[in-house]
Amino acid sequence: MPLKNTNIVSAAQTKFGALKGVTFREMFAEAVDKATTQAGVPKKEIQAAFIGSFIPEMLVHQGHTAPLLLDFAGLKGIPGTRHEAACASGATALRAAIMAIESGIYDTVLVAGVEKMTSSSTAKVTEALAAAADDQFESSIGLTFPGVFGIAAVAHMQRYGTTEEDMALVSVKAHKNASTNPLAQFQKEITLEKALTPRYVAWPLKLFDCSPISDGAAAVVLTSNEKAKKYTDLPVKITGTGQASASMDLCNRSDLTSFSSSVDASRIAYKMAGLEPKDMDFAIVHDCFTIAEIIASEDIGFFKPGEAAKAVRDGVTALDGDRPINPMGGLKAVGHPVGATGVKQVVVAYKELLGTAGPNQVPKHDTCIVHNFGGTGATCVVTVMRRSDV
Amino acid sequence: MPLKNTNIVSAAQTKFGALKGVTFREMFAEAVDKATTQAGVPKKEIQAAFIGSFIPEMLVHQGHTAPLLLDFAGLKGIPGTRHEAACASGATALRAAIMAIESGIYDTVLVAGVEKMTSSSTAKVTEALAAAADDQFESSIGLTFPGVFGIAAVAHMQRYGTTEEDMALVSVKAHKNASTNPLAQFQKEITLEKALTPRYVAWPLKLFDCSPISDGAAAVVLTSNEKAKKYTDLPVKITGTGQASASMDLCNRSDLTSFSSSVDASRIAYKMAGLEPKDMDFAIVHDCFTIAEIIASEDIGFFKPGEAAKAVRDGVTALDGDRPINPMGGLKAVGHPVGATGVKQVVVAYKELLGTAGPNQVPKHDTCIVHNFGGTGATCVVTVMRRSDV
Repeated sequence: MPLKNTNIVSAAQTKFGALKGVTFREMFAEAVDKATTQAGVPKKEIQAAFIGSFIPEMLVHQGHTAPLLLDFAGLKGIPGTRHEAACASGATALRAAIMAIESGIYDTVLVAGVEKMTSSSTAKVTEALAAAADDQFESSIGLTFPGVFGIAAVAHMQRYGTTEEDMALVSVKAHKNASTNPLAQFQKEITLEKALTPRYVAWPLKLFDCSPISDGAAAVVLTSNEKAKKYTDLPVKITGTGQASASMDLCNRSDLTSFSSSVDASRIAYKMAGLEPKDMDFAIVHDCFTIAEIIASEDIGFFKPGEAAKAVRDGVTALDGDRPINPMGGLKAVGHPVGATGVKQVVVAYKELLGTAGPNQVPKHDTCIVHNFGGTGATCVVTVMRRSDV
Repeated sequence: MPLKNTNIVSAAQTKFGALKGVTFREMFAEAVDKATTQAGVPKKEIQAAFIGSFIPEMLVHQGHTAPLLLDFAGLKGIPGTRHEAACASGATALRAAIMAIESGIYDTVLVAGVEKMTSSSTAKVTEALAAAADDQFESSIGLTFPGVFGIAAVAHMQRYGTTEEDMALVSVKAHKNASTNPLAQFQKEITLEKALTPRYVAWPLKLFDCSPISDGAAAVVLTSNEKAKKYTDLPVKITGTGQASASMDLCNRSDLTSFSSSVDASRIAYKMAGLEPKDMDFAIVHDCFTIAEIIASEDIGFFKPGEAAKAVRDGVTALDGDRPINPMGGLKAVGHPVGATGVKQVVVAYKELLGTAGPNQVPKHDTCIVHNFGGTGATCVVTVMRRSDV
């Protein structure tokens, strides 16, 4: 049965990128200010906060982030919890907020995500990100994330004939879309030739197959039906939510060409929303690496297994294609401040659904799916969103 | 209005202490196995997991803990999120689980907490714990947690005449209660003289005023009313839940003799439950330091401000007193594996409410309050629990 009472009435993000001189708490406060101002939600009407952040302990030596951030953002006193599931942290915060609204305990809440990564050395960031893999069986023996997704890419290439060029085309599309997104880390197009520059990070993944290290924050205001009327005539409904896990370590996976948590979470979310993949006008998927977008678009049912690469080649997933994916640029070109990503994806979906995405507007925009995953898909959260007048 | 649908049908913990050779994931699995076996809940009936853990990134270099732990504990695939609010991490996981049940999205879920602290050096643990304070304004200038609570103790002594002996009596009571608790880290009584040994950690707090560094895990199974019948004739109801925040840094607090988040969270939880402090038969409070128990017992309304010390002196908070507090020994003597604590408190409350606490059984045990806080009370979560036949 679709969720009945969960509405998005506002959604905003900071610019993503290397935000020199802007601290962890300042980015959070900026996103909150933008989101609350946009919908005219007085801060005193926000009853609770659900915050996604992956690893501030290691990146800014700050745990217990919720009360700290809330105080700094002018929301002192309200309950706040930080939710963590690696790169899916933002979406797990969203889910907790959905349950808070659906339970009737709160009727206006904040969901936010934040990560400050560029103030640490690359070695420190790599060490921090490695904490999202199994320390005992993966990261401690040197398997970093580009390595893990490189393995998945090889498996996909071997089974389906996916090529390095197919992956590069995902990057070219991401950069093209981001070129008109003023909040993106990389606002410039790249050629296929450049995307194929053989600066390998972990074969077959090259520099342009990898999302960058970024700073950023995003915030969304959720309300009950009753309260939504107060802030907007046109809220966006969250009608389906699904979350699933998989084993953390790749050695216990039966298939490396698909992530079972993506398949499971999508199935649950579609079922709850009473909709199918064909009902989705576009998708926001977790493209931490180009191969991840290809696999995700198959896992969420946009394409059959092994057919996503062809869709990319044919422009089906382009902004003006039949099934646009990541129309504002995705993690690849917009940036990937880990804890913010899952919330930023919802911000993008919200803008597109309302038809307010400007040069990045997709043609059909009634309903969409948002896919956020953590690690190598050990966690996946999928959300189905729909404009309320549909 | 009291929560209508949230039942505890099972609750268990590992032994707390320096558990040499037992890993983070093994402790978690042990607590889950105990909790599911106790109530005869087949693992396949658990639909989602809510996990409290404070800082595994720094202590065991492991983030993204939920899927890892669930896989290891035989619960692969179900959605799991890690919830973090410093020492209140366990109770924030509990609250998310309560909302999941009350929303109707799930009807049988696991709440668990875990922390592995003793495999790190004391310096590393101190650094990790400091991440629960404001890095910019407190921890980076050397204010550690014993220091922060030392300041609170001085303020309480100055305003109310509370003495070092009063605090020592809290420690003596904790050790007495823990002496018959086989799961406690310190199972031995101490004399008042010993508690007063002048080994100062941060004046006026001495060694025996401080909770120890510990390993441990705890787990609770929550179900809807309908499902509860399947597992037990006598569930325990959670009827009230409250959470509140305060500014992280002490310099922005108007009062150091009380923690506003404890007062606020208690008020919310009592109101939701439709009960008052006088209706509580006993309390489980967050005694990370002895002064914290004294202040908490005032903040939750068991005693008027400044009157808790007298209650301790008069034995009112003893196991056989009129208002027992921490009847199994509290954090002080049972141990304080940070993320596990908030869940372990619920385990203790569950045992006491059912009358199954053996030598640690409180005489009246229909209703109780559980108080878990994080940092210096920047986060507080309060839970009101009641036996279902009351």
